[in-house]
Amino acid sequence: MKKLANDLILRVLRGDPADRTPIWIMRQAGRYLPEYMAVRAKYDFLTICKTPEIAAEVTIQPVDAVDVDAAIVFSDILVLPEAMGMDLVVEEGKGGPRFLNPVRDRISASQVHDADCDKNLGYVAEALRITTERLGGRVPLIGFCGSPWTMLAYMVEGKGGEFAHARSMLYNDPSTAHRLLEALTRNCISYLKMQHRAGADLVQIFDSWAGYLSPDLYREFSLRYIEQIIRTLSSEVPVIVFAKGAGLSLDSIAAIAPAAVGVDWTVSIDRAAKIIGGAVQGNLDPAVLLAGSSVIEAETRKILEIAPRGRHIFNLGHGILQSTPVENVRTLVRFVKKWRHD
Amino acid sequence: MKKLANDLILRVLRGDPADRTPIWIMRQAGRYLPEYMAVRAKYDFLTICKTPEIAAEVTIQPVDAVDVDAAIVFSDILVLPEAMGMDLVVEEGKGGPRFLNPVRDRISASQVHDADCDKNLGYVAEALRITTERLGGRVPLIGFCGSPWTMLAYMVEGKGGEFAHARSMLYNDPSTAHRLLEALTRNCISYLKMQHRAGADLVQIFDSWAGYLSPDLYREFSLRYIEQIIRTLSSEVPVIVFAKGAGLSLDSIAAIAPAAVGVDWTVSIDRAAKIIGGAVQGNLDPAVLLAGSSVIEAETRKILEIAPRGRHIFNLGHGILQSTPVENVRTLVRFVKKWRHD
Repeated sequence: MKKLANDLILRVLRGDPADRTPIWIMRQAGRYLPEYMAVRAKYDFLTICKTPEIAAEVTIQPVDAVDVDAAIVFSDILVLPEAMGMDLVVEEGKGGPRFLNPVRDRISASQVHDADCDKNLGYVAEALRITTERLGGRVPLIGFCGSPWTMLAYMVEGKGGEFAHARSMLYNDPSTAHRLLEALTRNCISYLKMQHRAGADLVQIFDSWAGYLSPDLYREFSLRYIEQIIRTLSSEVPVIVFAKGAGLSLDSIAAIAPAAVGVDWTVSIDRAAKIIGGAVQGNLDPAVLLAGSSVIEAETRKILEIAPRGRHIFNLGHGILQSTPVENVRTLVRFVKKWRHD
Repeated sequence: MKKLANDLILRVLRGDPADRTPIWIMRQAGRYLPEYMAVRAKYDFLTICKTPEIAAEVTIQPVDAVDVDAAIVFSDILVLPEAMGMDLVVEEGKGGPRFLNPVRDRISASQVHDADCDKNLGYVAEALRITTERLGGRVPLIGFCGSPWTMLAYMVEGKGGEFAHARSMLYNDPSTAHRLLEALTRNCISYLKMQHRAGADLVQIFDSWAGYLSPDLYREFSLRYIEQIIRTLSSEVPVIVFAKGAGLSLDSIAAIAPAAVGVDWTVSIDRAAKIIGGAVQGNLDPAVLLAGSSVIEAETRKILEIAPRGRHIFNLGHGILQSTPVENVRTLVRFVKKWRHD
């Protein structure tokens, strides 16, 4: 067991006493950060992901630059489907990632195979090992993957959007969808286990496209598979589930018992906490960080005041916007770290 | 008062007896329809909107082609902001409409002026008059506008997306936002009154970007202004509010008392109806219409069975997808028209 100088996030996940609210930021190693942009000037996005030395460097950047309470390994949720047979293209800032060979039916689904994580995603494990060594226990290290539904949505659609083809597959060809989701779930489990062995102290499942499904479909095609991942992993490593746009399904998410539930900014954190019962993560609107420091502090205080005492990890409600001034992020982190419940 | 051969939608809005559930489809005059594409081959989108004869022609197309229970005037929610000083560009199918002169602050907000509807949006009134004459009372005619918040989101951002700049203005410069929203509200009211005088039997307010705001911000920056529109208009013409992504704010929407609330597919219609109390509109996932006819019928039945008896207008949960086969739309309409509560 790794010894951590700052284990606040793990304490909050376990329900152990923590003397303040910890904070990390989704997409904290990213384009708003000048140190990251300096690296990006030399290497493209996937090269950074796939070169462990460089991935480790950018993973640690926000810990140094903005003083967050965790590092999250620099990667992308789509490298797992890539290792399962999908042709991934990422042109950052140009409409997001794409798959050149979208899966639309039973036939094209047959191109999907198991990832063989150690062989094909070994670069993620190596990035985690190097990061762990360099961090020397300063803060916990977070591993992650996409939820099976969120990855399927990209695999079927081929790109971002409202995922109409993916939704259509759930209605029209549920058996192909379920077969793909089973494969994704099995591979998520291997992938997250590998990340934990390589140094991840906790993992987060990003269900970024939770909000495009009706509550019934969401339970059948997303939560059911996330539940299998949690059941298999939770005795080994804490699992946070971040489900964007799932404010109407918080009761169902709570029922599958993740270590914490991350929520977006469209639900009040006190309401979410009441439904969830356990630890919550979130949920400042990333757009607040484009405002002035008094607005940032006021909006941050509103969340801190109503969040559950000792069971709250501060975060944004979605990834940080690339136009965010770094100084505003420092204002946020300082404010959260200084703040105490009365 | 116009005499209508089919006034089912108006009956449902009033709570009068109706012998079956009526149906219309958001974006029913659109790219899925071969008749529309034939017109589009000759004229671009804004030319169709601004040429009353042609706008009337495409407005009536779905009434003839798929037999819906209402016509909705062919137009776009952004022609009102255009008439208020915004430079609108629509390249259909190429990433959606854009404003070339986005409003970002107090200074650029000063370019926004009152629309003078009769002069600058007279083409919409004329399209409604021609449509009314040609329809000869077959079905009701729907007028519409965007909600003040949804129009502001486009005006600030300049284009579609998650509207981070617009959200940021609400936090950072609420007084400019409120001034713009007041202007938009005042102009919405004139614009909808003009549409009613020109033949609209009911109107719909599209709050397409409701789902990007927290519940508090949604009440302060969106519902508050929609309420002013409803208060001013509801004695003259029934107002439907369609709020996409607002499943967590249905109670607040019900409180401003629209004639009906349109909901997207991410909330079950029985749950929505219970919260709303009055008439509801929706909410088939548009992706269902990409599936086979047995799936379409099964998913449609699920909604019809749980929707409130006599207080339901069938619709999709968002605009119809352009890849939808017309035959599937006919299957849907036939099924809804044949269906009866036991």
